[in-house]
Amino acid sequence: MDSGRLTLPIEEGMDSQLRELVQRLKPDAVRNSDGTALPAVAKELVDKVYATYFPSRGDHDWSRAHPDQRVHQYLMSRRHVGGGEPLHIDVMEGYFSQQFAPEMDCDKSKYWQVIDRTTNSEVPYGQWSVRQAPARAIDRAAEAANSGPQDPEAASAIVTIEDPEPFHEYTVNFLARQIWDSTQIYNYLTNDWAADPNRKKDKTYDPAYAQTWQFMQRALKEWLGEHPEVDVVRFTTFFYHFTLVFGEDAREKYVDWFGYSAAVSVPALEEFERVKGYALRPEDFVDAGYYNSPFRPPRKRFLDWIDFVSSQVADKAKVLVETTHEAGREAMMFLGDNWIGTEPYGKYFSQIGLDAVVGSVGNAATCRMISDIEGVRYTEGRFLPYFFPDVFNPEGDPVGEANESWLGARRAIIRNPLDRMGYGGYLSLAVAHPDFIERVEQIVAEFRSLHSVSDGQRPENSRIKVAIVNAWGSLRAWQTHMVAHALHYREAYSYVGVIEALAGLPFDVKFMSFADVQNGGLEGIDVVINAGSAGTAFSGGPVWEDPALVVAMREFVAGGGGFIGVGEPTGLTAKAAGTSGVTFALADVLGVDRERDWSLSTDKYPRRAREHFVTADLDSPFVPGEALAGVFTTTGTSLAHTEGGVSLAVNEYFGGRAVYATGMAYSVANARLLHRAIYWAAGAEGEWEQAGLCSNPALEVAHYPNGKILVANITGSDQSGIISGFSTEPVNVPSMQVKWVK
Amino acid sequence: MDSGRLTLPIEEGMDSQLRELVQRLKPDAVRNSDGTALPAVAKELVDKVYATYFPSRGDHDWSRAHPDQRVHQYLMSRRHVGGGEPLHIDVMEGYFSQQFAPEMDCDKSKYWQVIDRTTNSEVPYGQWSVRQAPARAIDRAAEAANSGPQDPEAASAIVTIEDPEPFHEYTVNFLARQIWDSTQIYNYLTNDWAADPNRKKDKTYDPAYAQTWQFMQRALKEWLGEHPEVDVVRFTTFFYHFTLVFGEDAREKYVDWFGYSAAVSVPALEEFERVKGYALRPEDFVDAGYYNSPFRPPRKRFLDWIDFVSSQVADKAKVLVETTHEAGREAMMFLGDNWIGTEPYGKYFSQIGLDAVVGSVGNAATCRMISDIEGVRYTEGRFLPYFFPDVFNPEGDPVGEANESWLGARRAIIRNPLDRMGYGGYLSLAVAHPDFIERVEQIVAEFRSLHSVSDGQRPENSRIKVAIVNAWGSLRAWQTHMVAHALHYREAYSYVGVIEALAGLPFDVKFMSFADVQNGGLEGIDVVINAGSAGTAFSGGPVWEDPALVVAMREFVAGGGGFIGVGEPTGLTAKAAGTSGVTFALADVLGVDRERDWSLSTDKYPRRAREHFVTADLDSPFVPGEALAGVFTTTGTSLAHTEGGVSLAVNEYFGGRAVYATGMAYSVANARLLHRAIYWAAGAEGEWEQAGLCSNPALEVAHYPNGKILVANITGSDQSGIISGFSTEPVNVPSMQVKWVK
Repeated sequence: MDSGRLTLPIEEGMDSQLRELVQRLKPDAVRNSDGTALPAVAKELVDKVYATYFPSRGDHDWSRAHPDQRVHQYLMSRRHVGGGEPLHIDVMEGYFSQQFAPEMDCDKSKYWQVIDRTTNSEVPYGQWSVRQAPARAIDRAAEAANSGPQDPEAASAIVTIEDPEPFHEYTVNFLARQIWDSTQIYNYLTNDWAADPNRKKDKTYDPAYAQTWQFMQRALKEWLGEHPEVDVVRFTTFFYHFTLVFGEDAREKYVDWFGYSAAVSVPALEEFERVKGYALRPEDFVDAGYYNSPFRPPRKRFLDWIDFVSSQVADKAKVLVETTHEAGREAMMFLGDNWIGTEPYGKYFSQIGLDAVVGSVGNAATCRMISDIEGVRYTEGRFLPYFFPDVFNPEGDPVGEANESWLGARRAIIRNPLDRMGYGGYLSLAVAHPDFIERVEQIVAEFRSLHSVSDGQRPENSRIKVAIVNAWGSLRAWQTHMVAHALHYREAYSYVGVIEALAGLPFDVKFMSFADVQNGGLEGIDVVINAGSAGTAFSGGPVWEDPALVVAMREFVAGGGGFIGVGEPTGLTAKAAGTSGVTFALADVLGVDRERDWSLSTDKYPRRAREHFVTADLDSPFVPGEALAGVFTTTGTSLAHTEGGVSLAVNEYFGGRAVYATGMAYSVANARLLHRAIYWAAGAEGEWEQAGLCSNPALEVAHYPNGKILVANITGSDQSGIISGFSTEPVNVPSMQVKWVK
Repeated sequence: MDSGRLTLPIEEGMDSQLRELVQRLKPDAVRNSDGTALPAVAKELVDKVYATYFPSRGDHDWSRAHPDQRVHQYLMSRRHVGGGEPLHIDVMEGYFSQQFAPEMDCDKSKYWQVIDRTTNSEVPYGQWSVRQAPARAIDRAAEAANSGPQDPEAASAIVTIEDPEPFHEYTVNFLARQIWDSTQIYNYLTNDWAADPNRKKDKTYDPAYAQTWQFMQRALKEWLGEHPEVDVVRFTTFFYHFTLVFGEDAREKYVDWFGYSAAVSVPALEEFERVKGYALRPEDFVDAGYYNSPFRPPRKRFLDWIDFVSSQVADKAKVLVETTHEAGREAMMFLGDNWIGTEPYGKYFSQIGLDAVVGSVGNAATCRMISDIEGVRYTEGRFLPYFFPDVFNPEGDPVGEANESWLGARRAIIRNPLDRMGYGGYLSLAVAHPDFIERVEQIVAEFRSLHSVSDGQRPENSRIKVAIVNAWGSLRAWQTHMVAHALHYREAYSYVGVIEALAGLPFDVKFMSFADVQNGGLEGIDVVINAGSAGTAFSGGPVWEDPALVVAMREFVAGGGGFIGVGEPTGLTAKAAGTSGVTFALADVLGVDRERDWSLSTDKYPRRAREHFVTADLDSPFVPGEALAGVFTTTGTSLAHTEGGVSLAVNEYFGGRAVYATGMAYSVANARLLHRAIYWAAGAEGEWEQAGLCSNPALEVAHYPNGKILVANITGSDQSGIISGFSTEPVNVPSMQVKWVK
């Protein structure tokens, strides 16, 4: 049996168990976690010791001595309706008083803003004023139970609008000082850390302040000197946390894994103005309360902010990485927590000079998100479940979670392997579940075999090149429709299924922005996919009002390209639909359109096909995921429908083809359906029988350059099927296993 | 037993059966139908003889002698994509060549239009040209089977765009001459009239042409002189048919019961320009292919056109009615077919001077639409089923249809009685179903008793005044969300349920436009209802971008009013939602909002109530109708929810209250729920026990000024329940029946 390629989380006080586990699982690296310390024995167990390092929240003395250099965030107050008298708004209403306090020490006329949401206009400073106020006392019981005693920095502020218009709604955009780190709040609430009187709250500090930045550089140098046992510095992460806001009931209130809101500060805003030549306003961050969610079609000002933050972060992270290298250690970045500004597909990422990236793997898409990263020497996936008490308890099912995560991720690992795998959390919790340890042993062995039997090569892909087209393009490869990392959202899963399926299918996949399309990006692409709800960054929103984009896509398809639309692809705004006469800008290409009750007067007579290449492997009705009603065929042919309308359709458009589906929730059946849809859209259905696939979609096949063929059972039951071009005898693969044949 | 109040359709060749039926059913009037002639015996059977009169299509000689004076309609060609060469568009592609031919005899630069739908811009005349072409030969077999030999007037036209932009989509708006009457086409297709060689196609003529108008006046005078046996001239109707377009496969292609498209002509457009001071363009009618559907938020130009047509029609109809009166006859209008311009709630209707209106009754709402008409001496409902072979055949269920129609309509008749009832079609078909005749006998008796036992009084209504607010307001009282008359549409029934329930509930209901609201219309109103999908005329669409409207509604509710929102009430366009931060303009009033995937990052923690006054009579989960996902509570409290979100919620807003439901499909349970919701929204739940209602929602109670109480079983099974304030003993009412108590 192989060894290595595995990182185990360890902790103090379980040395003998550790030795036994190392014998058994043969890790070549160990690590600590947020909240655990490395035992002295670490160094003798394995080749490499990782240590978690928090550049922006590790030092309590510094953070407490410099409250003015904390990270900040723009928040929007609750909406308040004005009457005939002065309107007082307590800006912290609804927010967790332990997490934020209003930043009073700034120019309010510039860094705060009051907006009349009924007229969408700013109320001039002078017509409103701000005064400090004590922290709100709401739900202190709930807060205290989970988060310990009240922070003395907790405070609020009252904004008074002197003469509000009656029955207009007002909100305050205010700059807030963050007084407790977001991930640590989560850990407190999840792991009952408040019960431990020795813990001290982390207060994140911001290197946008020169003094803090000097401190950060110095602190890392000192830490490296003090920790010669550490081989790999696992930065968790650099500076700015993704947007994670808690409510006054100490529950999560807002979460955006891509949120750039917590990177804001007065010096950063000043520097932005210097670099970009214009000043951002609070509303550019608050965005009517949507806070530039990745589902919002991004505005130029927000894209500029992303660019600015990424550039600043890359510059500073590079310095810390260089310091790490100078000390003879490796620098690894955790893809999460304070990762804002280090998006690994962004244009500044490779300048940082990292050795490795490690990230949490929940399924195939999140695995490819890591394994496809370029510009680092190796990648590592931290597998689920995390060893936390929410799963590792007598009622939990850690084996079930491990299987689900592994079956999903393995599809992606086969296509583009992670170099390493690992786990995180408290090992002491995991060893209390021997069946879990046993399953990990099997998974690790299988992971190593994917590297060794394949001779480290990637399997062959189809010649068909696929592009996912949305507003984010390559910046967010494999990260479409994500809100909180890999969590399920009713509104998203029907679209996430597209990339989840693709992450394990034998296609080269490119993520492309609408701007890329207009800049000739479709050269060499065979099939374009546009998936998402109308008005979002993923389907596109207002971009489809640009005739040049519409024409570029039509030209691509007419010239022989394929177009796959999912949900409300190319969905127009109401205004544009009202003048163009269609709801989908590319209704002509798709052969379907969606009813907005404006064309109920038009009779619809769907053309239906009972059999089609695309649906040939479906043995039960197509299940798109979340229901989307009102889609009807125009020139297209329906392959599946419900009482609510068409759910799957195909169309021919000059020399090209289109496939439409209301959704593509991930399932074994839908992954195969997408596979076939891509072949059909590319006009390549004649090549299907030569693709070496299995007749049974539950068995995914990978053909390696060394002639080896891997057959992976991606389900929890035994499967068999015939592999085209290989043998007419069926191949049998037991539940969840893989089989190498040839 | 009473007699009278009943109109029976009769026909030639069944005199002895007629005498027997008259004995039995005791009608006081008889009528012919479209396609039948009155027998000579008519006059001696009953008091009054109605005769159908078609002012604009009765004379074949006139219509054939004046092909240039036909009615016209604007049609949009199919959408065509341009390439690098001249683009030829056959404008009639997809249309029924027996119904329309392009109008070549007009100034194309003015009355035709070519639009680039990709840029939403007009292609200047000169860059395109038109040439006549023979009628398309597509589907002639299908056409001929149903519609007889090809009309020699059938023709098409080819529009050539010389230099189209590659991959832009083009459409032609063309003026078409109608060569066959729409209702007659329907009759041909439904009743196999093509098999009768004696029938001649009706070609509707247009009184906008002075010569035709002179003829129409003369023809009526002559007809009156030739038909002394006729007491009541049943105008069917006046001039312009609602929009009803057939496709090249001889199936219905487009239907809008409110459509003003077929009232267009060159003289009308010229007169419009003179009267209104500006000229309409073809696109004002074509409306990107939506043809100003009543679901479209109406634009001022279209409202001007409605006003213009209504004024013109009223002027001319008045002349015909006066002629009828001068001949000593009554003038009755059929509310349907060629009724455009005579909307009975329009401002010109009463000027026509009609004696009566008769209309088809499909349910409670369509019944109230007729019985609420003011300015006529009496109203008559034509009940379903129509005696046509589509129902009266061995497989049909005429009794079932009669019961359904009667149970629905009776709820409305109790609230505001029609003066008369009647049937239509071929009596010879109906008498072949003795069980149907028997059921009609019972229904007619019940109808008469509602008039006699009540002493002709209306029952008492609640003090609570309700207003339905939408773009159409009073013009379309009881006609919201209607596409084709009373037909079921998946997209509409969840909203139609609101007026269907109200049509039988004891409330004064006002239909009010958004403009009315801003002009103080809410004075005296207790509860406002806004129901519909976002972006439609019924929820409002762009009107909610007007702060004055938003403020007026907030002020109304804050001051103690009630607001009931159904579906996507006050739904904003994407642009407005993007800046205001809400999807429903009155999200603050409603306490709910709808997700458009922009606020997925915001955690939703619905507040739920298990019991509430509004749901107190529900004995199974709330069924709103069509599923509408993504609604969540903000400040409101959920009373019902599904996996897709909240489906019913309540909210308090200053001194007032709001109720929200995703839909309110008509059902016994939902009618009661709406009844309670109105009481609660009005803050009148304390009056509920004094309202004299039945504990069982299947028994509707009406209290008359003469002290009589009517208990109506609105279901098909026996029911019992206790009437509050009447007796603690339950009242039992057999299936479908009514009981008078006191």
